[in-house]
Amino acid sequence: MAFGKLIESIVKTNNPTVVGLDPRLELLPEFIKQAAYEEYGQTPEGAAEAVLRWGMGLIDALWDIVPAIKPQSAFYEQFGWAGIRALEQTVAYARKRGLYVIMDAKRGDIGSTMSAYAAAVLGEVQIGQSAYEPIGADALTVSGYLGSDCIDALLPLCDSRDRGVFVLVKTSNPSSGELQDRLLEGSPVYAAMGAMCEQWGSRTVHCYGYSAVGAVVGATYPRQLAELRKAMPTTFFLVPGYGAQGGTAADVAAAFDQRGLGAVVNSSRGIIAAYKRLGYPEQEYAAAARQAALDMQSDLLSHLPAITL
Amino acid sequence: MAFGKLIESIVKTNNPTVVGLDPRLELLPEFIKQAAYEEYGQTPEGAAEAVLRWGMGLIDALWDIVPAIKPQSAFYEQFGWAGIRALEQTVAYARKRGLYVIMDAKRGDIGSTMSAYAAAVLGEVQIGQSAYEPIGADALTVSGYLGSDCIDALLPLCDSRDRGVFVLVKTSNPSSGELQDRLLEGSPVYAAMGAMCEQWGSRTVHCYGYSAVGAVVGATYPRQLAELRKAMPTTFFLVPGYGAQGGTAADVAAAFDQRGLGAVVNSSRGIIAAYKRLGYPEQEYAAAARQAALDMQSDLLSHLPAITL
Repeated sequence: MAFGKLIESIVKTNNPTVVGLDPRLELLPEFIKQAAYEEYGQTPEGAAEAVLRWGMGLIDALWDIVPAIKPQSAFYEQFGWAGIRALEQTVAYARKRGLYVIMDAKRGDIGSTMSAYAAAVLGEVQIGQSAYEPIGADALTVSGYLGSDCIDALLPLCDSRDRGVFVLVKTSNPSSGELQDRLLEGSPVYAAMGAMCEQWGSRTVHCYGYSAVGAVVGATYPRQLAELRKAMPTTFFLVPGYGAQGGTAADVAAAFDQRGLGAVVNSSRGIIAAYKRLGYPEQEYAAAARQAALDMQSDLLSHLPAITL
Repeated sequence: MAFGKLIESIVKTNNPTVVGLDPRLELLPEFIKQAAYEEYGQTPEGAAEAVLRWGMGLIDALWDIVPAIKPQSAFYEQFGWAGIRALEQTVAYARKRGLYVIMDAKRGDIGSTMSAYAAAVLGEVQIGQSAYEPIGADALTVSGYLGSDCIDALLPLCDSRDRGVFVLVKTSNPSSGELQDRLLEGSPVYAAMGAMCEQWGSRTVHCYGYSAVGAVVGATYPRQLAELRKAMPTTFFLVPGYGAQGGTAADVAAAFDQRGLGAVVNSSRGIIAAYKRLGYPEQEYAAAARQAALDMQSDLLSHLPAITL
């Protein structure tokens, strides 16, 4: 329950890394795009086919050494319905390979609308007498600006279908402080959002010490990361901002507990576009991603306590 | 530019109403669902086909008396790629009929990710030598929790493609105050978000006195609505919460300026499911929606200054 499946995969792979799948066309190898365009044209269907093949190649190269992937919904949505079909197929393929799937879609709405998002990404939809699982991800990133009316719609699925959510608390981007760092009666907005996560999480089943309501806390603000880790002892963290955005392994160490657990660190470009940085031929983009993931694992492990349950 | 097209349509129809398209299956007439299921099965494709036909029927009944529709993305996303295809077709049909389309998707991300959302909903995507418009809506609802890094990715499209955004400021739901009403150095979070909207808007072309950065402010909090109208003189408001959620025409009057402009009021269930409330046979769901929209128009106009440019 809660993040149990993710935590067990982190222990099994000895790797607290999540690979962000951001299929920007400019990051995809030319040979994949050309083959798909020849078959389907320079169309959304062609782009979506390229994105699907690219993602499957990455999954084949990574499934045994990382616990999770994080598809970024925006980069699939940009190809319309064909992009969403590729997203559905990518998630299904990743889950078949045993990967934990965190859908990075930052949804946030209320009541029955939020229930529809929850059903779309994490649950099932009833159509007449039949039930369908549209995407079937394990976890979803969520904006908490609307308050409990948003989160309440997600909690039933967390317990009944073994799903998790990650609420935006302190994000990794430069302007995150414009609202998040401002003081609410003496403590920052991000701390208030963090306290809400702890409270929402207390209403879910816990597993290995963590609730089903996680938090997004950026690697680029290590002081706040350490402060939030202390203030949110039962909240699992999704940590973006490592690598390309400037966060280091030393920075993210503060996100973890004494068992080397409590967080999963995201890298997107640093892994999926490693062939460009490491000088691999583009046909070996997946092998380059595997090497980059192994390098990141070593880097993280050298700054963490040994990972144990 | 900015919300000029919307404002001109409001003046032309003499109606500051936006109709929320929330295709929950339980609100759709049985005859539409049965016909689609017979053709496509009780499948996402069948449900999406029903949703498309239903929406086209509503658009046919409403296009000459309301200025805008607001599709709720969640209810389309729940049918996976088939739902997104129905959404694309619904938006295209509405625009062909001259309706202004506000995509209610509450997106919020940063940098190139937000640019991908912007391209998906409001812009174009480049695929090889070809450009595609995935959804082609006129405006998008947005969460501002991440700060300027989110909005900055949208502003170029506002000016270059004549689009608008509505940032969540004070939402209509019961728990909106959990974060939004808390005091930041003496004034509430929603006021700080409102001030950010005014500032972001100042960087866009204005039209009829309003910038391209609008705000979502709920009808269910009339005191805050009046306070924000005063504090945000150049920000156009999208006002949810009228009708089913409890907001009245007297409540929403505070959202308007002396020309009867400055806001558009949403009603979803009250219009799209009027056939249930008003006792029409379900075959006449669209006629019932038209009647409900006319009733809402009368109700709003009786509380507003005469609408003039």
